[in-house]
Amino acid sequence: MKEPALLANQLFDTGCVKFGTFTLKSGLTSPIYIDLRLLVSRPSLLRQVGRALAEAAQGLSFDRIAAIPYAGLPIGVAMAMALDCPLIYPRREAKAHGTRQAIEGAFEAGETALLVDDLITRGDSKLEAIAPLEEAGLVVRDVLVLLDREQGGADDLARHGYRLHAVLCLTELLKQLVSSERITTAQYDAVMNYLV
Amino acid sequence: MKEPALLANQLFDTGCVKFGTFTLKSGLTSPIYIDLRLLVSRPSLLRQVGRALAEAAQGLSFDRIAAIPYAGLPIGVAMAMALDCPLIYPRREAKAHGTRQAIEGAFEAGETALLVDDLITRGDSKLEAIAPLEEAGLVVRDVLVLLDREQGGADDLARHGYRLHAVLCLTELLKQLVSSERITTAQYDAVMNYLV
Repeated sequence: MKEPALLANQLFDTGCVKFGTFTLKSGLTSPIYIDLRLLVSRPSLLRQVGRALAEAAQGLSFDRIAAIPYAGLPIGVAMAMALDCPLIYPRREAKAHGTRQAIEGAFEAGETALLVDDLITRGDSKLEAIAPLEEAGLVVRDVLVLLDREQGGADDLARHGYRLHAVLCLTELLKQLVSSERITTAQYDAVMNYLV
Repeated sequence: MKEPALLANQLFDTGCVKFGTFTLKSGLTSPIYIDLRLLVSRPSLLRQVGRALAEAAQGLSFDRIAAIPYAGLPIGVAMAMALDCPLIYPRREAKAHGTRQAIEGAFEAGETALLVDDLITRGDSKLEAIAPLEEAGLVVRDVLVLLDREQGGADDLARHGYRLHAVLCLTELLKQLVSSERITTAQYDAVMNYLV
């Protein structure tokens, strides 16, 4: 089985991807719930995720991995250790406090940063994370996520000149879970209809 | 050379510990500046730190590592991967937003969490991190840091019934840097006088 296929099964088996009826903050319901923050509680799976991201980054050119806290940070650390590549991270609350530096870790202006996060839905939170990196003189061309929910994120980024790369996209993940008999085709259809 | 001695040299060589005249936010000056957030930019050193923490935790009994974001999170991930022990982390801004869960990662009430962070000065930020863990039903007995600045943190924790463990304490670190001729005895004295 290929690495992304194996990962899809493990994300299901560890409860990072769940199927059912989930009530969102908006009050609407969703047939799928994804929580990749749970990966920290599965260090061996986290290590595999780090290797899968490293593999997906082959062919990209970058000096630093820039991970988005919180969810992207443990994933970025696992990837940094797999590649032996330096990591930096923009702080979430830098603007609010003002006294903290906006980016932690060592870097120099002119270096290229690969933005890494757990998943992408739309592009806005990635664009928000890119802004302080570019303000600090870093060059950002590529964004790498573990899971692309295929809900417009790639197009949002492309409109701003960034390329999206993903270890898994949601359709692939669902197909793999059907083929390994972890979900039914009815569950697959429910999620596909929900996403449209 | 023993692991902590090696680590002391490497923390100096990578700029995580600096000597000079540093102006603090308060306007006062300090002869030493410690930034262990830089560790993410040295993945191989981060891996060693993870192993050193794992070693320092031998003899302690715990079900989960609870890392304090931000600085403690990459260190906690490295330790979790070294030990293959699940990690959780309290969110910094959980209270402010209200809608987010206070603790990320999987755990059950009644389990024991080992609190992990990069360094300790006084005990207050550790006590703040322990509060949501205990509110969630976790048992906390021990706190493990990479570096103890020896400025009252151990006593603060002891008064609340927690034990502090450290891979390195600042005096040891300074002595090692003198013995490896990275700093002078004058620099050592300046920091020791400053700490008193």
